[in-house]
Amino acid sequence: MNVGLLGCGVVGSGVVKIIDKLHSDIKIKKILVRSENEITDKRMTTDVDKILNDESIDMIVECMGGLEPAHSYIMKAIEHGKHVVTSNKKMMATYFSEINEAASANHVLVRYEACVGGGIPWLHEVEHIRLIDQIASFKGIFNGTTNYILTSMENGLSFDEALKQAQQLGYAEADPSDDIDGYDVRYKCMLSMAKAFDFLCKPEKITTYGIRHITSEDMTYAREHGCTIKLIGRALRHPGAFTCFVMPSMIKNNEVLANVGSNINGIEVDSTTLGLSMYIGQGAGSLPTAHAVVQDMLSIVNGDGMSYRSLKKRLCNRQQTFTFYVRSSKPFNPELVEERINESTILTKQITLRSLNDSIKAMKDENVFVMEV
Amino acid sequence: MNVGLLGCGVVGSGVVKIIDKLHSDIKIKKILVRSENEITDKRMTTDVDKILNDESIDMIVECMGGLEPAHSYIMKAIEHGKHVVTSNKKMMATYFSEINEAASANHVLVRYEACVGGGIPWLHEVEHIRLIDQIASFKGIFNGTTNYILTSMENGLSFDEALKQAQQLGYAEADPSDDIDGYDVRYKCMLSMAKAFDFLCKPEKITTYGIRHITSEDMTYAREHGCTIKLIGRALRHPGAFTCFVMPSMIKNNEVLANVGSNINGIEVDSTTLGLSMYIGQGAGSLPTAHAVVQDMLSIVNGDGMSYRSLKKRLCNRQQTFTFYVRSSKPFNPELVEERINESTILTKQITLRSLNDSIKAMKDENVFVMEV
Repeated sequence: MNVGLLGCGVVGSGVVKIIDKLHSDIKIKKILVRSENEITDKRMTTDVDKILNDESIDMIVECMGGLEPAHSYIMKAIEHGKHVVTSNKKMMATYFSEINEAASANHVLVRYEACVGGGIPWLHEVEHIRLIDQIASFKGIFNGTTNYILTSMENGLSFDEALKQAQQLGYAEADPSDDIDGYDVRYKCMLSMAKAFDFLCKPEKITTYGIRHITSEDMTYAREHGCTIKLIGRALRHPGAFTCFVMPSMIKNNEVLANVGSNINGIEVDSTTLGLSMYIGQGAGSLPTAHAVVQDMLSIVNGDGMSYRSLKKRLCNRQQTFTFYVRSSKPFNPELVEERINESTILTKQITLRSLNDSIKAMKDENVFVMEV
Repeated sequence: MNVGLLGCGVVGSGVVKIIDKLHSDIKIKKILVRSENEITDKRMTTDVDKILNDESIDMIVECMGGLEPAHSYIMKAIEHGKHVVTSNKKMMATYFSEINEAASANHVLVRYEACVGGGIPWLHEVEHIRLIDQIASFKGIFNGTTNYILTSMENGLSFDEALKQAQQLGYAEADPSDDIDGYDVRYKCMLSMAKAFDFLCKPEKITTYGIRHITSEDMTYAREHGCTIKLIGRALRHPGAFTCFVMPSMIKNNEVLANVGSNINGIEVDSTTLGLSMYIGQGAGSLPTAHAVVQDMLSIVNGDGMSYRSLKKRLCNRQQTFTFYVRSSKPFNPELVEERINESTILTKQITLRSLNDSIKAMKDENVFVMEV
């Protein structure tokens, strides 16, 4: 099978490395790069039409990132009857229905394993478990950058120092917002819920708090309570509804997730007969992510797309109650306060996500830090 | 596809429960039970020939345990052209080549996911990883019973108390030797090495030390060094050779494996492009193990056996060096001692598995306790 690769950065170059060494029926025929001076290989071109219009190419592998032009290229590829593999979570989460429906109408396969959990075969496992079980919930560390920052803060660095270090090591982007504000995890939760629950919700409807405003004070509070802070994406099934949120969370030190450190990802899933199971591995990086992309390419050669059912579009339920830690210089709705930790910090009663969101909005504090306890 | 189920104990009854609820093409047609008074279902019989000679049955699922008659029944089933799924690790490890070769000759499929790691899709993942990668090593907690005992000892119980409790909870057999002496893990390592390395070694050739003689003194030593003791099965690839051993091992408290407690299993694997990844879940129990059996049944319906290559038969390499903790009332080869912890306990230098085995044999102490540090 001939492949057209769109993008040859961190992930794309890993895909080339793996495929060129692998004894398989897959051949990378053309590679799209951004500019003439990036061309280092006869297969490279800056003209996407040479790839999309090449009838000998049966599969497009998109590792460009960003919404456009990745989205338009993928839609064109599907219309040209080409299978699609992508590692672009933001694009996939944003245009999920459009892409899946077009693929279905054009009888091509779409896979996006590398979008969630990097090298961890997470979506593959979810599909595998669902052959037998219903999934009740999942919960995990879906973002390596923030996990690296939090682990460094555990070891004494400030947030700014930890972020800088993560950027120097190539774990964090120059603009780290998608990671540290939790949007990256939100895309991954949206894609995981579609797979785990057949439940479609817009990413922006998932309650999301990041770690941008975390301080050593928050770390100390967690440590004194025998816990470690992790940025967690979590989704739960209730009768006829689903809850999902992305938020820093206090995890007991003897729980496995608390010990998933550095830039590693770890995801736990609870299902009918299997009970709790957990998958841990490299959530990013060139070769691990490329490994997931190549697994998808091999699956497509075997005729195996990710099953797409027409999904229920519904809002996330925000009626489940949890207890939250809130630190802010502004006052929080006093009726919902369970305990004052100090002047700036409170624990809420068991309150709903809706109450939390409303109360946070009312505070008008851009520097508020929130976590589940 | 019609199935004949051999054995309806803990695992077998779980298989019946799952299959009877699942919407699939699989039907359990007959079930072998040991005696007339176990018959509670029209499908049950005590006559194995009624199952093996039933031409409408295409698949035999063996959940009896023990070497015989399970082994003979499986061989007969294969000769009758029936596919085989088994959860019987001892039998599968003992007759591995015979069963796989017969299956190959008779064009039937054999699967044994439930033999290793219970509900964890471990062998499935190893096959998946190997589509792309070479596996360098694996290391894990493969036995829930001993993990439960060790976790209880962490919490203050003596070995005898912890074993008794595990027996009362149904985690340990009346005769717990296979678990506590490490034989169960040995079978699982043998099956994992065949899958991970295409390397066939007789189970009895794997260096194996169990936890039968562990005391609170050993637990204290580990704790004082910031470690937890786990019974570990571990295998490593070297150029042209493989090392494998089963042994209690000191694991640093902040490592994930140290926090895999109770009767949970966890296995870590290192491979070329994926790097380190890890799978954690229920290593035993009716429904989780039955889940793995049913996954195998579904795979066979899809024509997917576990690929069997003719394997290299070789001895395990015992030339790699490690440091060991040895507690015994008898003296250990003084030339290999690095440090005396107290009268009965020493740390060895970095020595080979062969030196360890020879020195232990020379001690003639049936109560010796050994662990890797």
